[in-house]
Amino acid sequence: MTSTHCGKEAELARPIIIDTDPGIDDAVALLLAFASPEFDIKGVTVVSGNVALEHTVRNTLQVCELADRRDVPVYPGCTRPMLRDPVYGLFSGQGGLGKTELPPPTMTVRETHAVDYLVAALTDAARAGEPVTLCTLGPLTNVALALAHTPRIRDGIESIVMMAGAFRELGNRSISAEFNILVDPHAAHIVFEAGIPIVMLPLDVTHQAMATPARIDAIRAVGNPVTDVVADILTFWDRKDSKRFGGRGGPLHDPLVLDYLLAPEHYGSDEARVWVEHSSELLMGHTVADFWGKTGEKPNAKVVLKVDADAFFELLGRRLAKYARG
Amino acid sequence: MTSTHCGKEAELARPIIIDTDPGIDDAVALLLAFASPEFDIKGVTVVSGNVALEHTVRNTLQVCELADRRDVPVYPGCTRPMLRDPVYGLFSGQGGLGKTELPPPTMTVRETHAVDYLVAALTDAARAGEPVTLCTLGPLTNVALALAHTPRIRDGIESIVMMAGAFRELGNRSISAEFNILVDPHAAHIVFEAGIPIVMLPLDVTHQAMATPARIDAIRAVGNPVTDVVADILTFWDRKDSKRFGGRGGPLHDPLVLDYLLAPEHYGSDEARVWVEHSSELLMGHTVADFWGKTGEKPNAKVVLKVDADAFFELLGRRLAKYARG
Amino acid sequence: MTSTHCGKEAELARPIIIDTDPGIDDAVALLLAFASPEFDIKGVTVVSGNVALEHTVRNTLQVCELADRRDVPVYPGCTRPMLRDPVYGLFSGQGGLGKTELPPPTMTVRETHAVDYLVAALTDAARAGEPVTLCTLGPLTNVALALAHTPRIRDGIESIVMMAGAFRELGNRSISAEFNILVDPHAAHIVFEAGIPIVMLPLDVTHQAMATPARIDAIRAVGNPVTDVVADILTFWDRKDSKRFGGRGGPLHDPLVLDYLLAPEHYGSDEARVWVEHSSELLMGHTVADFWGKTGEKPNAKVVLKVDADAFFELLGRRLAKYARG
Amino acid sequence: MTSTHCGKEAELARPIIIDTDPGIDDAVALLLAFASPEFDIKGVTVVSGNVALEHTVRNTLQVCELADRRDVPVYPGCTRPMLRDPVYGLFSGQGGLGKTELPPPTMTVRETHAVDYLVAALTDAARAGEPVTLCTLGPLTNVALALAHTPRIRDGIESIVMMAGAFRELGNRSISAEFNILVDPHAAHIVFEAGIPIVMLPLDVTHQAMATPARIDAIRAVGNPVTDVVADILTFWDRKDSKRFGGRGGPLHDPLVLDYLLAPEHYGSDEARVWVEHSSELLMGHTVADFWGKTGEKPNAKVVLKVDADAFFELLGRRLAKYARG
Repeated sequence: MTSTHCGKEAELARPIIIDTDPGIDDAVALLLAFASPEFDIKGVTVVSGNVALEHTVRNTLQVCELADRRDVPVYPGCTRPMLRDPVYGLFSGQGGLGKTELPPPTMTVRETHAVDYLVAALTDAARAGEPVTLCTLGPLTNVALALAHTPRIRDGIESIVMMAGAFRELGNRSISAEFNILVDPHAAHIVFEAGIPIVMLPLDVTHQAMATPARIDAIRAVGNPVTDVVADILTFWDRKDSKRFGGRGGPLHDPLVLDYLLAPEHYGSDEARVWVEHSSELLMGHTVADFWGKTGEKPNAKVVLKVDADAFFELLGRRLAKYARG
Repeated sequence: MTSTHCGKEAELARPIIIDTDPGIDDAVALLLAFASPEFDIKGVTVVSGNVALEHTVRNTLQVCELADRRDVPVYPGCTRPMLRDPVYGLFSGQGGLGKTELPPPTMTVRETHAVDYLVAALTDAARAGEPVTLCTLGPLTNVALALAHTPRIRDGIESIVMMAGAFRELGNRSISAEFNILVDPHAAHIVFEAGIPIVMLPLDVTHQAMATPARIDAIRAVGNPVTDVVADILTFWDRKDSKRFGGRGGPLHDPLVLDYLLAPEHYGSDEARVWVEHSSELLMGHTVADFWGKTGEKPNAKVVLKVDADAFFELLGRRLAKYARG
Repeated sequence: MTSTHCGKEAELARPIIIDTDPGIDDAVALLLAFASPEFDIKGVTVVSGNVALEHTVRNTLQVCELADRRDVPVYPGCTRPMLRDPVYGLFSGQGGLGKTELPPPTMTVRETHAVDYLVAALTDAARAGEPVTLCTLGPLTNVALALAHTPRIRDGIESIVMMAGAFRELGNRSISAEFNILVDPHAAHIVFEAGIPIVMLPLDVTHQAMATPARIDAIRAVGNPVTDVVADILTFWDRKDSKRFGGRGGPLHDPLVLDYLLAPEHYGSDEARVWVEHSSELLMGHTVADFWGKTGEKPNAKVVLKVDADAFFELLGRRLAKYARG
Repeated sequence: MTSTHCGKEAELARPIIIDTDPGIDDAVALLLAFASPEFDIKGVTVVSGNVALEHTVRNTLQVCELADRRDVPVYPGCTRPMLRDPVYGLFSGQGGLGKTELPPPTMTVRETHAVDYLVAALTDAARAGEPVTLCTLGPLTNVALALAHTPRIRDGIESIVMMAGAFRELGNRSISAEFNILVDPHAAHIVFEAGIPIVMLPLDVTHQAMATPARIDAIRAVGNPVTDVVADILTFWDRKDSKRFGGRGGPLHDPLVLDYLLAPEHYGSDEARVWVEHSSELLMGHTVADFWGKTGEKPNAKVVLKVDADAFFELLGRRLAKYARG
C-alpha cells in the first residue's frame, strides 16, 4: 500500500472527513478512500446504522487494519438515531461484513466523541479558511447533532457528499425510503435545512452500480488480500436474481461518494430543492425534490442521477490494486 | 358518427360509467369512448377537478353534443373535494377546454346527483349480477362518497380503471403528487381501501403518451369537426419544449383509461399494494406502492407502467375518424 | 304518553332532526326528546357508533316503541366511518343498551338512507325558509356525507347542537379524544369547516352531569315503564367509583343536547374557533379551541362548558314522568 | 446575600443544574435558587427560548451579579431549536427582562458549550454515584442534545424537574401548546422517551401561581435591591385583567420548579404516561397524558397539578428577603 500522504501530494489532497456505518458497501468505500492520494483523510467518524455502533466501530477498525492504515483517527459517535428507534440494515449480515471474519482489531478508537470531533475539526477548518468535504455513508445523526450543537460549523464544510435518499427509484429499507434517511429522518432534515452545499447520491444512481458476478470476478482477479476480502463481501452482498434488479449483484452504494469526488466526469446530476419527510408514518424518510422550480424555492442540493458504472468499477479495481500483495 | 349500440354489438359491449372533470384530456377520452362500440356507456358522472363543476359539466355537455351523443345521461356531482379546499388544474385553461369555444350546450343534465346515480346504478348492477366498469378520469370524490354512502356497491363494480397517481415519475400538480389524487386524497384513500379491483394509470405511463406536434397533425389530417377540435385543444395542451419532457407536446393522460380497456395489449403493468398519503402537508396526495411484497400485504391494484404510445395514438386516430364529416 | 304535536304546540315547536347511535345515553336523549312538545321531530337518522349500525338501528326502534312513538320516521345511515376503521364504545354493552332486553321491534325503518333523507329534508327546509335544528348524538358521518354531497343544505340548518369533543377535560375513548369525534374525525372536520352555527357540548360539560345512584333512584321512583328502563340502563352505565370521576355514576352525555335546547339557562358557554385533528395518530380526534382570539380567526362554535346538573336531572325526571304508567 | 454553601449545609445540599432562558420568570427562579442553601448549584446552562441566546445569556449573567453570585459557572448552549425555526416568548419584553435595565454584566461565561458541560458533568455524576437534579426552565434543546450525544448520562440524573407542558389548561404560546414544548417539541420528545424520572410542572399548576399586584407589593415591601428588581419585572409581567386569567397578574411559571424541590408539600401531583406531539402542525408541542392507565403504558412522569400559591409566594418572599440591603 503506497498511499502515503506526504510531499506535494498531501498539499494538493482534498481534506475530507468520512462519516460511516460499515456495512459492506461502507467497507469498500473506506478501502477506496484509503487507496486514493487525492484525499487527505482527517478522520473517520462512526455512527449506528447498518448494525449497532459497537459493530460499525469494530468493522471500521478492521477495515483500517486490512488497509494497513492504523494511522487513521477513528471517532465513535451516536449509538442511536435522534428521535426514532433504531432500524438496522438487511444486507450486510449480522456483524455488518457478511460472513467474512476479519482479525480482531488491535488499534483503538480515539476517546473524543464523533460529534465533538466534528464540532472541533470543522470549527478549526472554518477559522483556518480550509473547509473540509464531509463524506457521509450512513444515517446523518452525527452530522446533525454537530450542526445542532454549533450551527456555524457550516463555514468549515466545503460540501457534504452523501449516499442518501431516493426519488424516481423507490425505497430500499421501506417501500418509500432509502435506509440512511429512514433511520434518522430528523437528522436528515437538519442537514438539508442547514444551508450547506450538498451533493446527494440517491438510490436512483447507486442502483446503476451493480456489483455483478463479472465485476466481482474482476476485483478478485487482482489477487491481493484487500481484493480477496472485497470480492468475498460483495459476493455475500449479491441479491441473487432479485425481481427488483432483474439480475445478479447488489448495488454498491457508498463507494460512489468517493468516486464522485475522484472522477465527477463519471456522473450526471441535477440541482433541486430537496425535502425530507419526518412526520408521516407511511412515508417516513421519503425524500422529495423540486427539479423544475415549481415551488419557487432555491435548490439546496445537487442530485446525482447517472453514473458510468463501468468507469466506476474500473477505477475501483485500479485503486484496490494498489494495496500490497499479502 | 355510427357508434349506435344496437344488435349484437350492444350485447357484447362492456357496461361502463365514466366519471370525469373535463379538462382537455378528459374531452379526448370522452370522444374516444363515444366512438367505441365496445363500450355500453351507462352514464357520465361529472366532478369538480380541472375546473369548477359548472365548467366541467358544461364541457361534458358540449363534448357530448360535439359527438352528437345527446342520448348520454350526464349526472353532475360534487362541487368540491371532501375535506380539502379545491385546487384546480393548470393546463386546460380557465374554462377547461383551452381557447376552444364550443357552442353553448342545448342538452341538459339529469336531475339526479352523480353520487345518487352511482349508488343506484351500481346497486342495480350488483343485484343483476352485471357489474359495471368504472372509468375515472378526475378526482375520486363522487366515487368515494358513493362508497362511503353504501359500501356494498362494490359488488356492482367489475373494476375501477383510473387515471391517477405517480410512482417513479414525480408529481405534476405538486412536486410529489399527481393532480387527481392531490385534489382529493381522502377520497382516493377510501377508494383504494374499498377492496375493489383497481387498474391504475399513473403519470409513469401517461407521460409516455405525448401529444407531439406530429401526432396532433395526424389527428388534424383526418379532417372532421371532432378531429378539428381535438387537434385545436391538444395544440393548447402542448407544454412547449418543457425542461421536464425534453421536447414538444403534453402528456395525454385520460384517454389511456379507455384505450387500456380497448387494447390491453398496448400496456405493461405490475401488481402492487398502493397507499395514498393524506396526512403530511409535504407529501399530500403522494401514492406509494409495494411492488415486491416487502410489506407482506396483498396487492390492491394493477399499476400500469408502460404503453405503446404509437399504437395508442394510431387507435385514437382511427376511432376519431369514425365521426361524420361536417 | 301525551306529547302529541298538534294545535298551537306544534306551531311553536322547534323542527329538529336527531342523528344518533344508541347507546345508553342516546336512548335517554331520545326519550327526553319524545316527551318534549317543544320539539317537532322531523326524523331520526341513525349511524354506526357506540355499536354497529344493525344494533343502533334496532335500539332506536325499540326506544321509539318503548315511548309509543311508532310514528317517528327512522332512517338508517352509514355503516362505518368515512376513512377510519370503526371503533366502538365501551360503556353501552355489546348490544348498546347494557343488559336491558327490550322487546324485538315491530316497527320498521324507512327505506331512504339517512344521508339522502338529510339532503332532501334540509334542501326542502332551505327552500321553505324553515331551517331545522340538527341534534347530533353520535359520530358525524351521516351529516358530513350529506354536506359533502350537497354543501348548500347548510342553508336548511338553523344550527347543529352536538355532543362532541373535549377541551380542558381529557378524552374518553382515547386519552386525547372524545368518542364521537375519534370515531370519525374526518367527518367532524367537514362539519366544523362548513360554516354552520354549531353548539358543542364537550366532555367538559357532560362530565358535570353524573347519573349518580341518588339521581337514578329519583328516576326509578317515578315508576312508569319508561323510567324503569331508564333507571336500569343508567345503573349499567355507572362507572362504579372510577378514579377519574371520583365517585359513583356515569356521565349522561347525550341528553344534554336536548336539555340545552329546552332550557339554555341551565348552561354557560364560550364562543371559540374549534379545529379537529385528523392527521396525527397520537392525537387523532382531539379538538382544540381558540377561546381568546389568539389566532385571529372568527369563532365557528359556541362551546358549552357549564351545566346546572341538578336542574337538568330535575327537568329530565319531570319529562320522563309524562310517559304513561304501564 | 448570605447563602454561602459551606459546612454542614453544603454536605446536605441537593446538587442541581439549572437550564434556563431568562425571561422574567426564569430570573425570579434563579434568584430563588441562589437564595436557597438547600441547593448546591453545579452550573447554569443557558438556552435560546424567551429571547435569543445572546439575550438569555446576558440576562443570566446580570441576574447572577444582581444576586452577587459571580461564582456560578454559566454555560451558553444552543442558539436555536433542533429542527424547527425559533419562536420567541411574548411576555418578557424584547430584551427578556421587561423594561428593567440591569447594569451590563462584568462576569463572563465559561467557554464550554452547555451541551458539553451537561455530558461531562452528568457522566461524572454517574461515575461518582452522585446524580444531579436537572431543573429545566426553558425549551429542552440543551438537555435533548446531551441525551442524544451520550444516552448513558441518564444515570447521572436524579430526576428532571421541568416547567413544561399543558393538559387540562390550554396552551399559552399557541392555542394548544405551552411555550417551552412548542419551541422544541423534538427535544421534548427525546427527553420524555429517555427513561429518566420526570417531574413536570405544566400550565395547569403554574396558572395557579398568579403574581397579583398584592403579591408584588409584598415582595416590593421587603425593600432590598433584589426585591426591587423582582417587583419591577413582575409588574411588567402582569397581563392586566386578561380575559383568560379573569383578573390581574401574570402566572409565575418557572420559580415553581425550585419551590417544588424546596417544599414538595406545597404541591399535588399525579403519575402519568406523557407524550409530546411533534408531527401535526395544528397541535405541534401539545402534551397528552394517560392518567388512568388507559393505554397500558407505564407512567414516565409525575405531573404536578396543584399548588398552594400563598405558601409558594410566602416562601419566595422569605428567600428574597435574605438578599442584603443595598
